[in-house]
Amino acid sequence: MLLREAVGRVLRLARTSQSRTLRDVARDARVSLGYLSEVERGQKEASSELLNSICNALGLSLSILMSDVALEIKSTEGATLSVVDAA
Amino acid sequence: MLLREAVGRVLRLARTSQSRTLRDVARDARVSLGYLSEVERGQKEASSELLNSICNALGLSLSILMSDVALEIKSTEGATLSVVDAA
Repeated sequence: MLLREAVGRVLRLARTSQSRTLRDVARDARVSLGYLSEVERGQKEASSELLNSICNALGLSLSILMSDVALEIKSTEGATLSVVDAA
Repeated sequence: MLLREAVGRVLRLARTSQSRTLRDVARDARVSLGYLSEVERGQKEASSELLNSICNALGLSLSILMSDVALEIKSTEGATLSVVDAA
C-alpha cells in the first residue's frame, strides 16, 4: 500500500465518521473540493501544509492521523504476508 | 511540525543508526543523492513510490516508519502544549 492511499483512506474515514461532506471539509481546510477528493482517493499526494489544514478542519492532530495511517498500512502488510504464507 | 520534516528526521535517524551514507542508501533506493538529502532535511515531499523505495533500501517497513513518524510528531505537539501551559 502506498502512503497516499493510506492517508486518503484515514482522512475519508475521519470525515464520514463525522457525517461531513467533502464540500464542508474542503471549505474549512481552504482547499478545493477536487483536491480533497483526489487526496481521499489516494490519487494525489497531499502537501504537508495542506495535510495540516485538512487535519485542522477535521479536528484531528497530525500525530493521531499518522498513527492511524501506520495501522492502516500495517493491516495491509499483514494481509500480504498471509498470502505469502498460504502459498 | 510538518509531515515531511518528521519523515525526514526518521529516515535520517534510520540511515545513520545503520552507519550508512546518503550515497549508499540513495543508490540502493535508486533515487538521486540530492533528492534523498532534501527529503531527509524536510525540504522536499517524498512521493509515496520513492518513499517505499527508500524504506526498502533501509530494510524498514512503511508501517514502522509511519509509527515512528507519528511519535516524532507527537513529541513536538507535546512540546508545543508545554509552552502553552507555561504561559
